[in-house]
Amino acid sequence: MDHKILVINSGSSSTKYKLLAMNPRNVLREGRVEIGQASGDTVAQVSERLRVAASQIAGITAIGHRVVHGGSRFTCPAYLDQEALETIAALRRYAPLHTDAVLAGVRATAELLPGVPQVAVFDTAFHATLPTHASAYALPREIAAEFDLRRFGFHGISCQHALKVAAEALGLPPAQCNLIVVHLGAGASVTAIEAGASVDTSMGLTPLEGLIMGTRCGDIDPAVPLFLQEDLGMTAGEVYELLNNESGLLGMCGVADMRDLHSLAASGHGPATLALQAFCYRVKKYIGAYFAVLGRVDTLVFTGGIGENDARVRELVCEGLSPLGIELDGTKNTAPGNGMRPISTTGSPTKMLIIKADEESEIAEQVLRFLGKETTA
Amino acid sequence: MDHKILVINSGSSSTKYKLLAMNPRNVLREGRVEIGQASGDTVAQVSERLRVAASQIAGITAIGHRVVHGGSRFTCPAYLDQEALETIAALRRYAPLHTDAVLAGVRATAELLPGVPQVAVFDTAFHATLPTHASAYALPREIAAEFDLRRFGFHGISCQHALKVAAEALGLPPAQCNLIVVHLGAGASVTAIEAGASVDTSMGLTPLEGLIMGTRCGDIDPAVPLFLQEDLGMTAGEVYELLNNESGLLGMCGVADMRDLHSLAASGHGPATLALQAFCYRVKKYIGAYFAVLGRVDTLVFTGGIGENDARVRELVCEGLSPLGIELDGTKNTAPGNGMRPISTTGSPTKMLIIKADEESEIAEQVLRFLGKETTA
Repeated sequence: MDHKILVINSGSSSTKYKLLAMNPRNVLREGRVEIGQASGDTVAQVSERLRVAASQIAGITAIGHRVVHGGSRFTCPAYLDQEALETIAALRRYAPLHTDAVLAGVRATAELLPGVPQVAVFDTAFHATLPTHASAYALPREIAAEFDLRRFGFHGISCQHALKVAAEALGLPPAQCNLIVVHLGAGASVTAIEAGASVDTSMGLTPLEGLIMGTRCGDIDPAVPLFLQEDLGMTAGEVYELLNNESGLLGMCGVADMRDLHSLAASGHGPATLALQAFCYRVKKYIGAYFAVLGRVDTLVFTGGIGENDARVRELVCEGLSPLGIELDGTKNTAPGNGMRPISTTGSPTKMLIIKADEESEIAEQVLRFLGKETTA
Repeated sequence: MDHKILVINSGSSSTKYKLLAMNPRNVLREGRVEIGQASGDTVAQVSERLRVAASQIAGITAIGHRVVHGGSRFTCPAYLDQEALETIAALRRYAPLHTDAVLAGVRATAELLPGVPQVAVFDTAFHATLPTHASAYALPREIAAEFDLRRFGFHGISCQHALKVAAEALGLPPAQCNLIVVHLGAGASVTAIEAGASVDTSMGLTPLEGLIMGTRCGDIDPAVPLFLQEDLGMTAGEVYELLNNESGLLGMCGVADMRDLHSLAASGHGPATLALQAFCYRVKKYIGAYFAVLGRVDTLVFTGGIGENDARVRELVCEGLSPLGIELDGTKNTAPGNGMRPISTTGSPTKMLIIKADEESEIAEQVLRFLGKETTA
């Protein structure tokens, strides 16, 4: 039989929803609400739009919610029961905006579709396979254990989708694929996948670590947040906000959106040019680091809004990587396109693919599998 | 004529002094005082030993002091006049133990050898060539500029010595050498050198960033220091102490010294094994990152106490790096030795050298050059 899954993807800058028929796969309704006001308002808007849509669609099998942080408790999908909601709420500090939107979304859909199973799919879950030498921070052991302070990693749902698509393109089972997945959007990360499992990733305890992002600082001397409190007379919480919401590309040059940044840089704006170079340079370093970790990389994947659409960023990232066997084809890189497409030279030892991010369809599939109802049933 | 230079190397765990005749090069006196008590006491001990030594040595040309942080002000050696001392004192927060020892050392030697020029050689100076895309943190631009928050890098004096020795071994001018210098001691860093100039390095605004060290955490999610304040009820200053003095290898497994750590790991102590793996894994990732940055690496250098003497660490670091053209020769790696020696296979595209760290002789040479008195004069 056919199943219909409603997916709610509450992000830091918008809430997306998609109503998917699974067999054959078909998007029945979709929409996005930008977070302009308080997240409560946003959820009310989503809820209202869903109410209209749901009135036209009978028989929703389940509702899948993207949940950013599952901590150590959740390494696979889970019913959003009271215990799960409490665990998610307890992890709120690591992703406050996401978590508020998720919790509000669960309440709204429960009211709208009473009795329909609600399932959480966690963005951290794919990284549960990280070896401890990659996930451990060099903190006092008892403190790290008590407060569960370690690298969790995010963008796991996007990585799972990229892995599936890349494996198909390679003609290999996912469990035989070594990949580097470069997800570049408002949030940005690089993940090393060995034999189908995540073995390292640039985001950490929170989505603040790693690459430079739209408004997040990424990697920085751990002394900096502490000195900023002294320098700016700020509390720890205020510095956390500053590093999450006023840093990154926005802090460096005044714009958080890479398209605006290109315009600024093209007009000769020095800080924008520096921000672009620094952004791409960090990606390049992570690719090198993960190449050293993996030894063999079958495919380097670009995904996410910037990863899929920004040929100039891809060009700057790949500049000088031919000694690693990573050779970008300039023509393919700049050719227009939308879906999955190769961008490496014919002879490049490491293949390179653009893969369109599709967290919603990945979530829907995971929800169906979790419910024991395969799409082919 | 011959010159005699007295070098004071005030480190975080000991103060070393060396009295060097420059032509021919000869160590006339040397010693080390471990920092067991307050740094004032240590300097008094050094001062007393120097007093005895100096009474037997006539005609000291100059005194060279290793100064850890020169900020943006000092990118080459400088006389330790009032302005220099004030600048160094203003940067104290980035290296409090080092700086207290340096300032006390300057006072003690000024008293002991009045009228003899005192020259600072800065550990940050070699990294003044970092391009801004490597040195910039993705912080709000005005804040970064006002408080000079950026990557400075340390271990520069050690890198300069390694560059000189490696260039001689390669038969190339330093300005043609691409190196990765892995300095592993109580402090630890990796530096990328392109055409003789530092282009990236793992330590940052302070010596806390980068690799896992004896007691320092190295790279960590920038959110962690902020959450630690909440979790542990600590001030920012207390967390800074925790991350500098109670983290790293010590925090992970209870011992800061790599020799003790090997014993623990050999006895089946799980946390020690993890600490060893995590330590080496971080080094491997930086080597990969800097390989991507440099494209061509002539020589990978191991230096510092662990880098020179710990074959097991070198083995773990280099494991799986042959796709980068880095091939360790197991026999050469474990052969006993003291001075400079190659440890790569004959066919390894990237050569690997152990180079004995000698900051004191590098400081003495820089002091002489600064004074316009070449060793061959």
